[in-house]
Amino acid sequence: MKLIRYGSPGAERPGMIDAQGRLRDLSAQIADIAGAALSPASLAALAVIDPATLPLIEGTPRLGPCVGQVGKFLCIGLNYSDHAAETGATVPPEPVLFTKATSAIIGPHDTVRIPRGSTKTDWEVELGVVIGSTAKYVDEAEAQACIAGYCLINDVSEREYQLERHGTWDKGKGCDTFGPLGPWLVTKDEVDDPCNLRMWLEVNGHRYQDGSSGTMVYKPAFLVSYLSQFMSLHPGDVISTGTPPGVGMGQKPPVFLKAGDVMRLGIDGLGEQRQEVVAD
Amino acid sequence: MKLIRYGSPGAERPGMIDAQGRLRDLSAQIADIAGAALSPASLAALAVIDPATLPLIEGTPRLGPCVGQVGKFLCIGLNYSDHAAETGATVPPEPVLFTKATSAIIGPHDTVRIPRGSTKTDWEVELGVVIGSTAKYVDEAEAQACIAGYCLINDVSEREYQLERHGTWDKGKGCDTFGPLGPWLVTKDEVDDPCNLRMWLEVNGHRYQDGSSGTMVYKPAFLVSYLSQFMSLHPGDVISTGTPPGVGMGQKPPVFLKAGDVMRLGIDGLGEQRQEVVAD
Repeated sequence: MKLIRYGSPGAERPGMIDAQGRLRDLSAQIADIAGAALSPASLAALAVIDPATLPLIEGTPRLGPCVGQVGKFLCIGLNYSDHAAETGATVPPEPVLFTKATSAIIGPHDTVRIPRGSTKTDWEVELGVVIGSTAKYVDEAEAQACIAGYCLINDVSEREYQLERHGTWDKGKGCDTFGPLGPWLVTKDEVDDPCNLRMWLEVNGHRYQDGSSGTMVYKPAFLVSYLSQFMSLHPGDVISTGTPPGVGMGQKPPVFLKAGDVMRLGIDGLGEQRQEVVAD
Repeated sequence: MKLIRYGSPGAERPGMIDAQGRLRDLSAQIADIAGAALSPASLAALAVIDPATLPLIEGTPRLGPCVGQVGKFLCIGLNYSDHAAETGATVPPEPVLFTKATSAIIGPHDTVRIPRGSTKTDWEVELGVVIGSTAKYVDEAEAQACIAGYCLINDVSEREYQLERHGTWDKGKGCDTFGPLGPWLVTKDEVDDPCNLRMWLEVNGHRYQDGSSGTMVYKPAFLVSYLSQFMSLHPGDVISTGTPPGVGMGQKPPVFLKAGDVMRLGIDGLGEQRQEVVAD
């Protein structure tokens, strides 16, 4: 299934995409694409519904972030060997964890705002893992069972705030609008191999990132298992698993976002995002 | 006012402490000590209620974390010059930001669990700032108006995970049970000077931390203003503002928590916490 949330920010309703690509409403089945609605039992109950029996959503409503009420937005850094190289770093011997503020989450086509004073706002196309069942001290096989599905994420990042302003990377990762999620939460049964997906990102039509999740070092099930040794993962938590090469910081000379730019990004099977960039 | 949340984990009800120290129920007035209930208008409406007219809460129920539905749990590191010195660091030229997972939040007297494999679980008594109004690009005067009140926090920290396991400090800060909040959210009108409060922490009756928020470098209103340049702060967000000297890592030789230990900690006017420590 391709699950969506549609409507105005903060008032999104749940839905799904049918085989013809039309939006169908799930409000009668679940309150939101969030929390317990992401459990295996809940997803199994949704999977047996004939989409044709669901109300058709008319028009082209705004799509919200494809997961609601995200509790934790955990991110893995330097998880593609070629991206690590372009930033002058090496892949560490275990995953690098940082955190994005959940208040940074927006819909896939919402406007990205450059923070006041920012000169180094950058992009990162990433594969997102959405948790469906609580995970604590799980091994990789158990971890796989805790994954509800996958989604496309733009891990928008302010490099000066992240790297030059003291403290952890979190300062440059959690700015408002820095977390577009979606368009779809694709349940894992529809993703044959999350580690073999083409992923790309363009700014103003120029393709800066053109990679594959095949070069990801620490894979989704490993990451869920690994993180669960440190903290419980709960339904609706999202893990952004790192980016392939081609970020703005890695260009020679570096390229950063400016007002008026348009980002487009996508991952095979997980849909596309488009964000206009404005000054905040 | 001293606002509390009482009842079983995840099902806490709102209340307040009356002048005689008894618990009074606020369920008829607000759904939770959370979000919009922390706004100036909401707190003003609660302040005019005669506590004697509120239902008395019988017995001694568990106290939950004094703020519910925390969206962001932001923390400031190395914010006491004497604590920075004991860890071998210096106070940086601007605040150090890191993040605790909101899933780490527990009640003030709940059990703290040492993660499996941990050998360096440590304590940090901290002054917490609770946001009452949305703050974005605010100056210090505006920031002060966005603060709902203050609370006691134990910023429990795993030093190996924080410092020796690659990536940001977040890995050692967000473990389950690492964020006791409370017992009370004390509204700011009852805290004359948040930067002149004695704060202390004992393990098994030995006083390790015995400091004052007077040695805090970056003060609450400054921190709210500062953080609001990077991201919006929302009602119910919590900022933990750093710890005075005396953490376990700073002892010679270092001392870390073990199963069976009991922590007690307090800040003048903000109450006390007591946590038993167990192995997870």
